[in-house]
Amino acid sequence: MKHLISIEDLSKSDIERILNLAEYLIPVAEGKKRMEIMRGKILANLFFEPSTRTRMSFEVAMKRLGGEVVNLTSQEASSIAKGENLADTIRVISGYADVIVIRHSLEGAAKFAAENSSVPVINAGDGAGQHPTQTLLDLFTLRREAKLENVKIALVGDLKYSRTVHSLVKALKLYNAKIYYVCPDTLMLPEELVEEVGGERVALEDIISEVDAIYVTRIQKERFPDEEEYRKVAGSYVITSKILENAKEDLIIMHPLPRVDEITFDVDKTKHAVYYKQAFYGVPVRMAILCEVVEWSN
Amino acid sequence: MKHLISIEDLSKSDIERILNLAEYLIPVAEGKKRMEIMRGKILANLFFEPSTRTRMSFEVAMKRLGGEVVNLTSQEASSIAKGENLADTIRVISGYADVIVIRHSLEGAAKFAAENSSVPVINAGDGAGQHPTQTLLDLFTLRREAKLENVKIALVGDLKYSRTVHSLVKALKLYNAKIYYVCPDTLMLPEELVEEVGGERVALEDIISEVDAIYVTRIQKERFPDEEEYRKVAGSYVITSKILENAKEDLIIMHPLPRVDEITFDVDKTKHAVYYKQAFYGVPVRMAILCEVVEWSN
Amino acid sequence: MKHLISIEDLSKSDIERILNLAEYLIPVAEGKKRMEIMRGKILANLFFEPSTRTRMSFEVAMKRLGGEVVNLTSQEASSIAKGENLADTIRVISGYADVIVIRHSLEGAAKFAAENSSVPVINAGDGAGQHPTQTLLDLFTLRREAKLENVKIALVGDLKYSRTVHSLVKALKLYNAKIYYVCPDTLMLPEELVEEVGGERVALEDIISEVDAIYVTRIQKERFPDEEEYRKVAGSYVITSKILENAKEDLIIMHPLPRVDEITFDVDKTKHAVYYKQAFYGVPVRMAILCEVVEWSN
Repeated sequence: MKHLISIEDLSKSDIERILNLAEYLIPVAEGKKRMEIMRGKILANLFFEPSTRTRMSFEVAMKRLGGEVVNLTSQEASSIAKGENLADTIRVISGYADVIVIRHSLEGAAKFAAENSSVPVINAGDGAGQHPTQTLLDLFTLRREAKLENVKIALVGDLKYSRTVHSLVKALKLYNAKIYYVCPDTLMLPEELVEEVGGERVALEDIISEVDAIYVTRIQKERFPDEEEYRKVAGSYVITSKILENAKEDLIIMHPLPRVDEITFDVDKTKHAVYYKQAFYGVPVRMAILCEVVEWSN
Repeated sequence: MKHLISIEDLSKSDIERILNLAEYLIPVAEGKKRMEIMRGKILANLFFEPSTRTRMSFEVAMKRLGGEVVNLTSQEASSIAKGENLADTIRVISGYADVIVIRHSLEGAAKFAAENSSVPVINAGDGAGQHPTQTLLDLFTLRREAKLENVKIALVGDLKYSRTVHSLVKALKLYNAKIYYVCPDTLMLPEELVEEVGGERVALEDIISEVDAIYVTRIQKERFPDEEEYRKVAGSYVITSKILENAKEDLIIMHPLPRVDEITFDVDKTKHAVYYKQAFYGVPVRMAILCEVVEWSN
Repeated sequence: MKHLISIEDLSKSDIERILNLAEYLIPVAEGKKRMEIMRGKILANLFFEPSTRTRMSFEVAMKRLGGEVVNLTSQEASSIAKGENLADTIRVISGYADVIVIRHSLEGAAKFAAENSSVPVINAGDGAGQHPTQTLLDLFTLRREAKLENVKIALVGDLKYSRTVHSLVKALKLYNAKIYYVCPDTLMLPEELVEEVGGERVALEDIISEVDAIYVTRIQKERFPDEEEYRKVAGSYVITSKILENAKEDLIIMHPLPRVDEITFDVDKTKHAVYYKQAFYGVPVRMAILCEVVEWSN
């Protein structure tokens, strides 16, 4: 039985296989083609933390493939979180469903769930831990909208605390990417990660004409001692149309969303903005992941 | 692409087409006939405010037509309401679904959603704004249970703040209705609306023997300076069996529900009470609306 | 039209018919066989109180049979609970669905719902009242994993307040069971029930080598004047591997879940532990109940 807990569970050829399948599934994700290979299968969506995009795109992925979805309600999630035993909950629910998707505020929760489950478990984010399906859709977006092998990419914003960025850089290493870090001193990627994956710290204006992709993440107010300091720092990492004047014609701008004000609204209309497409790609990529872990026959 | 934001988006012939289709769909709504024309389609139900009847009847309408529904959870709704960008949310969700149904506490929210959506948007109530699908089911109920052309109808209760009433009177104007207003001084229909649609203020007992339909709405405590005043006023607008003694044989009583005590329980058992049927008609009417806005092929 | 409100609504032959059908439906519940006899039918899951296992297993049961499910959201449930009229809510929802499952904190709520519904109502727990589908799955577990006729069973823990136990003993009476009560003085089965069903109070060690089944329920802290007293008492009713050393080879241990610490974790791995299977049996048993109450044709 296969689980997907960490992006490091996957080899480069695993990743390629998933991305190729996702490519093939795009018309199914768009609702233009029917392929009900999950017919009769049930996905249990266990979101102990809210996450509209991730939860909904899993639900849509399963339903577009003809399968069924059972969601935990907010109240159930909080009553389990308050007093119940997660192991027992997983053992019971894995008797009801064919696959479990779990989002939890505690690092390690998805792995723990997998150890107690009789069906495949997919990690949809476990606190400061991993979010491998986000990484796969990020890779898919790069491959489809820019390029993946030898990509030159600037990571902008909070590189210290962003789970998304940490998983992404590990995966990018497999593709011989050239990585640039654009961030305040206090929000630089952890040193052990830099040692593992390489890359260098730069100012955005110095590499803007050279990069294929910019991956923007939100800088959160809570990381700063006061609001004044936050505004000053965060303001320097906002992507505007102005900054993009020197960009390559086919530069793409990615963002895991939700966005607050780290990309100005005038950028949305430029050809560079691919973050809504990126969000959509969550559907075919999660379809491919479901096909990968759930046993099916057509 | 068609949206349904306001009842005024529809011409009389649009309304007729929808009501005719709803009529045809009644056996499907009752589960007696199968017609899975929405198979493979996905409706996103975005209720930022709870509304059991409206949300559920949309979900049932879609499912009876063979389609799938993805609901926002309460917790997701409140986390979007708190900090996220509604435009971004809609852009992303319109990439997941084939049609969006939205209920929001702010007037104009549905129109704003439509402007940012790549799929049809249906307004399921936007604050003090519009609730066009309620109006269509009200018209359907009148047509099926009483009559629509030249109907004589008394609107009872809170005519000032009721979104339902404001939309209804506009639509009734298309049908040459004779409208009576039965309400406290402070809760009369806004003057500009009276100018637009006509009608006269009366006491219920003066027209009870003449009207084809009574449409009752709740008078809310919050509209009055104190509870004593509220009781006195609201008490005069309660529909009882006694009042109905002089009614026409085939008078119908409508209510958008939920009802508190503006219709006494003894009325429920009379042949006049059609408010449960009216609630049921929400299903075939919303089915017809879905067929109208979602592209489908059978 | 059939409702299922209380286990006492069913004769022994009704129970047998349901359990036989559940047996037949196990491969469908496991997703290994397809039998979409609820296709086009809609179940309304009205949980006014959260109950993950019961709600989810009903949803899975309906979906594995090809049917659709509409859930009340947490926020809708609380807004109905706060101000609306349950009778009106049920009248409306029974116009939308083919069967209603209701869980409510007030005893009698399910019966009241049935009186106002135009479709079958299944009680999924009404406060201190009944929980007949739990009783049926308990009987099914006994029949399949141990035996039902002439079973020797020890009920352990809180026998005074446990709704589950009260319903179970009534049903066991039909099967000539030998019942033992293992509980603190203050948590003994109500006297009138003992008079009705018989059985005797014992210490677990005196009958452990003799019983076919142990049914464990949680002792709740709130039943005791202070935490110290609770710990002392509850600690004496914990099932451990040690206690099981003298048990029959094929003794089974049941628990309605969630479990806190009334069964130690080392017991989970023994052949005696059937509580996860018992939870799974909720699916085929609820499938059989749905087939029993919903009109269907294949």
